[in-house]
Amino acid sequence: MITSGLKGRDFISLRDFSKAEVESMLEVALQLKADNAIRRRHTDILPGRTLFMIFFNASLRTRNSFEAGIYQLGGNSHFLSPSDTRVPALKGEEIAYQTERISDMARVLSRMGDAISIRILGDKVDWVYDKGLRVIQEFAKWSDIPVINMEDNVYHPCQGMADVMTLREMYGRDLRGRKLAVSWTYSPSTKKPIAPHHDFMYAASYFGPEIVYARPPEMRIDPEIEAAIKANVEANGGSYSVVDNMEDACDQADIVYAKNHVCLDLLPPVAAQPKHEEMAKLFLKYKDWIADERRMKMGKPDAKYMHCLPCERGFEVTDEVMDGPWGAIFDEAENRLHAQKGVMACIIP
Amino acid sequence: MITSGLKGRDFISLRDFSKAEVESMLEVALQLKADNAIRRRHTDILPGRTLFMIFFNASLRTRNSFEAGIYQLGGNSHFLSPSDTRVPALKGEEIAYQTERISDMARVLSRMGDAISIRILGDKVDWVYDKGLRVIQEFAKWSDIPVINMEDNVYHPCQGMADVMTLREMYGRDLRGRKLAVSWTYSPSTKKPIAPHHDFMYAASYFGPEIVYARPPEMRIDPEIEAAIKANVEANGGSYSVVDNMEDACDQADIVYAKNHVCLDLLPPVAAQPKHEEMAKLFLKYKDWIADERRMKMGKPDAKYMHCLPCERGFEVTDEVMDGPWGAIFDEAENRLHAQKGVMACIIP
Amino acid sequence: MITSGLKGRDFISLRDFSKAEVESMLEVALQLKADNAIRRRHTDILPGRTLFMIFFNASLRTRNSFEAGIYQLGGNSHFLSPSDTRVPALKGEEIAYQTERISDMARVLSRMGDAISIRILGDKVDWVYDKGLRVIQEFAKWSDIPVINMEDNVYHPCQGMADVMTLREMYGRDLRGRKLAVSWTYSPSTKKPIAPHHDFMYAASYFGPEIVYARPPEMRIDPEIEAAIKANVEANGGSYSVVDNMEDACDQADIVYAKNHVCLDLLPPVAAQPKHEEMAKLFLKYKDWIADERRMKMGKPDAKYMHCLPCERGFEVTDEVMDGPWGAIFDEAENRLHAQKGVMACIIP
Repeated sequence: MITSGLKGRDFISLRDFSKAEVESMLEVALQLKADNAIRRRHTDILPGRTLFMIFFNASLRTRNSFEAGIYQLGGNSHFLSPSDTRVPALKGEEIAYQTERISDMARVLSRMGDAISIRILGDKVDWVYDKGLRVIQEFAKWSDIPVINMEDNVYHPCQGMADVMTLREMYGRDLRGRKLAVSWTYSPSTKKPIAPHHDFMYAASYFGPEIVYARPPEMRIDPEIEAAIKANVEANGGSYSVVDNMEDACDQADIVYAKNHVCLDLLPPVAAQPKHEEMAKLFLKYKDWIADERRMKMGKPDAKYMHCLPCERGFEVTDEVMDGPWGAIFDEAENRLHAQKGVMACIIP
Repeated sequence: MITSGLKGRDFISLRDFSKAEVESMLEVALQLKADNAIRRRHTDILPGRTLFMIFFNASLRTRNSFEAGIYQLGGNSHFLSPSDTRVPALKGEEIAYQTERISDMARVLSRMGDAISIRILGDKVDWVYDKGLRVIQEFAKWSDIPVINMEDNVYHPCQGMADVMTLREMYGRDLRGRKLAVSWTYSPSTKKPIAPHHDFMYAASYFGPEIVYARPPEMRIDPEIEAAIKANVEANGGSYSVVDNMEDACDQADIVYAKNHVCLDLLPPVAAQPKHEEMAKLFLKYKDWIADERRMKMGKPDAKYMHCLPCERGFEVTDEVMDGPWGAIFDEAENRLHAQKGVMACIIP
Repeated sequence: MITSGLKGRDFISLRDFSKAEVESMLEVALQLKADNAIRRRHTDILPGRTLFMIFFNASLRTRNSFEAGIYQLGGNSHFLSPSDTRVPALKGEEIAYQTERISDMARVLSRMGDAISIRILGDKVDWVYDKGLRVIQEFAKWSDIPVINMEDNVYHPCQGMADVMTLREMYGRDLRGRKLAVSWTYSPSTKKPIAPHHDFMYAASYFGPEIVYARPPEMRIDPEIEAAIKANVEANGGSYSVVDNMEDACDQADIVYAKNHVCLDLLPPVAAQPKHEEMAKLFLKYKDWIADERRMKMGKPDAKYMHCLPCERGFEVTDEVMDGPWGAIFDEAENRLHAQKGVMACIIP
């Protein structure tokens, strides 16, 4: 376990962290979870610290887990919506009396508190793939305090940490020999980001599982991230492969992580403009891509279903899977709280 | 005083609680109120607990009393608006990427905190009478932590507790021989719920007063609740009757509780659709139904006026009554804080 | 230093406070700032206290500094938006089911917490110059707890306190002999209030500097406040003068405080209606009024630039000035936190 080198770091992408660093934060998270069963609050961990949470997008799990989490560590949070402040703007995108340049906002907040967390994706950045990430990175560039990514279009590292913590609770720290089926599913909405798929796989890749990604031929994850996942999982004793049907992935799987994600080829920068209508039509071709009982039964006898939530019941997953013996979903949701407490306890000075 | 059997309970309707249970929570509330005069916060009562407050409707008293209340008990609260999360939806009413099924939200929040409180009524449920209550009950069904009703179209039990606490401060624990005039009044708005009338009367009914409900012939309270009030007040040594003019109610009254409420016969399920225009016309026939000096003077010499607030000054009640010697309204408002602290201290584990 | 006479006072205008009182609050603020470098929170200063923050207008600095500030003093705050409650209304301006009379809101909040802070200006009062101030004064009239002005169209006393605290950190408590250039600048927005200019000058006037206010001939500050500034600064050994170009003000200045403000003659009560289009045209005549490197270099060698933020970069001030050696802006922003903690620690009982 590493006990130095984390204080003051930003938490924007898991790829900035070594396996030893990720494991250290997980171990702190597990320790905090056990402690939480005894007492709710540790006022001596981050006493008096203030976390600024900036939400461009709606949130249930992320907001409540951060707000409860920093409080349980002894601190406090501010729930900030761009409609309550001026809208943070990159240089060159400013509008008088409506926006404020990020460099100014970041430096001001740095003087008043201890960490900034940000969620910005989808419609809020007109589906420009890397724009949310650039906004978060710009905050980090100017901020003197740690910046935490609460999800952009590319990354959702807090979800990745909670996911791998849930895997560790089930299987221990070594995931070699475990098969993770990671699948696209249908959804009537074309607005579900791809970041959770990315970071579920990247977080797991540190621990060497067999990752099988299933998607229709028109769909894909970010190839640069795909290469990183492949390299990392192979370096840790596992494998990464892609199939074009759910069944091959689900067969003998330990975990079925199946949910919708957008079609990257119908969004910027590949497309000039987001093509949501075309995407909806494309998705309809694959309406039978759903996590259902039949597919769960193809997995190992104790196979579990995972989803970062919120899910589209009846489209991504059936009620039987969500509410039956397969669900690890609420453990996964709870671990958002503990995993993020582990991250915050390690990085906030 | 009962000291067991309350931990972990939901607080959705007073009708779920025995007289001994209501009295126990009131006694805790009075104790906490006295303590509050000495010190503001007791960090040893609910240390580290998180209350999730979900507000579909606007609120001043309810929100601030819960938010200050849980803080004063040592805990923390999250102010959640459905515009900041996905909208909680009953099964069958879901819309992809806009709603999340209540069973999922309730189970997720149960993993992250200690109680859920909900306000949902009126326009937010298209005036379907019992829909808000069903939403709250659905949260309670799936939640492992207590659920508190912060007002639906049917019940407002927190207001009822504050009201009866205010009566107890004035008259002691026995209300036999006290006359409570509970009246409809005019309002130019047709959106004022009936729940406060219901729970003022139901909360008082445990302690045996003479309840006289005054309303124009077209108006009524929920007959099922009316029967429950009548049965409960008679079992406790009091009486319930209905009159069609304010004067008969106010005559020799100790308390005049007079405010507008909707006309149930012009709303679902009696009407197929809410008929607000028709209701506004009907209300205009009774524009003289107002709590004024003349009517207050018909009561006992020390008669008091009560209203859960916010009130429509000049329509429901005159400035003279609000700001004159009759007002018990700000004691009543303050007791929201203490009554709810009593409830939370008893039911939150 | 004065240690009595401040508890329970409202903080609406600096003009209600003597020099000794302002100095006492500044000294407390400086003490709290030094302590803050060692520990983040002092739970023994305002333990268990609740601050109700009512924001009609957007805010970054004000909200976060108050929210973090009261927390660091051991208390808690509620972020209240008029869209989440009924809208506070003066008598005669009420609308049933949409507004609540201020006298009622103020008395209710007084029963539930310990201080009320309010921001209300600009569009939210249809640019009626004194209406926001009247709303704040009405809250203070009915409230039993201190009311703090978080900015109206006339005053921004918290900003004034932070500004003069920043001057004190640079120059000590005596500002005699220091030249403050206080200038209007161009902005493409016509919605930037004049209150910060007023209170920067009034706060400084206690300590005797040479204040030179520069503005185009069509612009002016409130003449009644101008007279008060002049009288106060002269009584304290300084001077106040007005010039019609930035250069005369910047020449040999220690401080350049340069930002846009509205044209009072194009707003009520001088104009019957706000004339924003006419104002935008007028402003365009003075597009070269900007705080730039050339003008900063006209000042003393160690001249500093101040601005309450948010600023319109490229219009009010250049990037070179904001991000170069002249900026005292982030010290100024940080001092919002400490100055307000000083005020709250002194006035909240």
